[in-house]
Amino acid sequence: MLQAKVTIVGLGLMGGSLALALRLAQRVAQRPFPTHITVVDTNPATRRAALRLADVVTADFAEGVAEAELIILATPVRTVVSLLKELAAVRPDGCMVLDLGSTKQDICAVMAALPAHFAALGGHPMCGKETAGFSSATPDLYRDKTFVLCRNRRTTARIEALVLELLTIVGANPLFLPAAVHDEMVAAISHLPYLVAGSLLRTAAALDDERLWTVSASGFRDTSRVSGTDPQMMLDILLTNKTAVLQQLQRYQEEITAVTQLLAADDEENLAAWLAETQAEYVAYREKSDERWVMSDE
Amino acid sequence: MLQAKVTIVGLGLMGGSLALALRLAQRVAQRPFPTHITVVDTNPATRRAALRLADVVTADFAEGVAEAELIILATPVRTVVSLLKELAAVRPDGCMVLDLGSTKQDICAVMAALPAHFAALGGHPMCGKETAGFSSATPDLYRDKTFVLCRNRRTTARIEALVLELLTIVGANPLFLPAAVHDEMVAAISHLPYLVAGSLLRTAAALDDERLWTVSASGFRDTSRVSGTDPQMMLDILLTNKTAVLQQLQRYQEEITAVTQLLAADDEENLAAWLAETQAEYVAYREKSDERWVMSDE
Repeated sequence: MLQAKVTIVGLGLMGGSLALALRLAQRVAQRPFPTHITVVDTNPATRRAALRLADVVTADFAEGVAEAELIILATPVRTVVSLLKELAAVRPDGCMVLDLGSTKQDICAVMAALPAHFAALGGHPMCGKETAGFSSATPDLYRDKTFVLCRNRRTTARIEALVLELLTIVGANPLFLPAAVHDEMVAAISHLPYLVAGSLLRTAAALDDERLWTVSASGFRDTSRVSGTDPQMMLDILLTNKTAVLQQLQRYQEEITAVTQLLAADDEENLAAWLAETQAEYVAYREKSDERWVMSDE
Repeated sequence: MLQAKVTIVGLGLMGGSLALALRLAQRVAQRPFPTHITVVDTNPATRRAALRLADVVTADFAEGVAEAELIILATPVRTVVSLLKELAAVRPDGCMVLDLGSTKQDICAVMAALPAHFAALGGHPMCGKETAGFSSATPDLYRDKTFVLCRNRRTTARIEALVLELLTIVGANPLFLPAAVHDEMVAAISHLPYLVAGSLLRTAAALDDERLWTVSASGFRDTSRVSGTDPQMMLDILLTNKTAVLQQLQRYQEEITAVTQLLAADDEENLAAWLAETQAEYVAYREKSDERWVMSDE
């Protein structure tokens, strides 16, 4: 069985849940991987909370990664990019690096440019919440969730094997995708929904009537939920996936403009067809994904 | 304590849940209201299912309402309007009528035009689901939910008292609103979210890649959920609330166009401000509504 000293950089929802899951697996299942967990975080309160689950806790990136065999970068995307660019200087001997960033093309490009004695794999676990930070972290966050992996020029058989074992420990399901395919998909099923939900919430809030929240029910709550996403994380996502997000926004605008025109024209026949098609698409989507939800806690 | 013979017309999610709640209250709490429940439904399978909870079940509107003191119209909006227009002919002696329709201005206008010996009150329980029909009905659907009531020229003290008692039995919270205010609010927090969610689902489905549903997580599931709404119900909603829905669509378009332009222009400062404002609006909305959710089953 593989073993490795692991350093997790950034103890937010993703990094924190990973640390909790690995520590729990060590204690409960007595799995020998990882042998040693170091946590790097810039927030003093988070570092204090991390003392119970890590062997070493530090605010200093260079110090925290100095002896790591596998570094896991679990920060917002543009911080992942910056840290990858520092890596060759702080680890002249090379090491393995995985990230958990929400977009993958920029990160995989920087990974590919690492010196040849580094091994790197892009990762993105599909298990966000609208609440961020270590206080929202749970050891079962990854269980039965899809964990996208993006190979690049620095991906080796050894890092793949190690990361796949890590996914087994936390209960996630690996899915290898090219970075560009991943970024287009998450533009459609994550970044566009965020912009849609945020615009919806702002539109309702602009009515500025307190009774609105008494009238609103579970439909509004669910449709608007992702607008609570951490702004810093989302800023990095949008700026590093701009092309794909703008493309999905344009296709979305075509869809909503079409139904708006049907309504404005009182075109009952085609409006009825639009509604029926939409429900059929929803039923088809739920049939495809329901088996996974049944298996999941969420 | 008030008593009344009640006829529920349309045994879908709303009418069915109301019938279940009233029957349960009769049996468990031995409440004497209503003394007698008649159900009218055009679907033979639904009528068979209704036999266990109603004293009389029929497909015929005139027959079903012949002896009712309180008629509850629980059909799609335009059917409510049609039935109200038939009412004077089938009940020349007058009676009381409540409806559960999703938009209120058209219905309240027709109620106001009833002969003076009718008493009428517009109603809209805020407890939709994305699944429709009697098979989705539950006796606790109304519990702790807001139930909007819209007075009109035919609203009397007696029907108000009777309906308020009915709401007490099913556990709903009454909120009186003018029909026009109700319709603007639901345009923003129910009809716009439907169009937004439907357009979002169609945009994602157009990618036509099965892997998309493996990558999609709870964020997409929640943001798109209401696109499963019954098409016939939604068609009536949109066509009877066209002006308010088009107005909210326009305001929504301004919001999403603004954030699209910030992204297209790489305007990091203002994009960051938009994201932070949106999260703050979300937190404020949840603070206002969380107390209600804690009390609710949903």
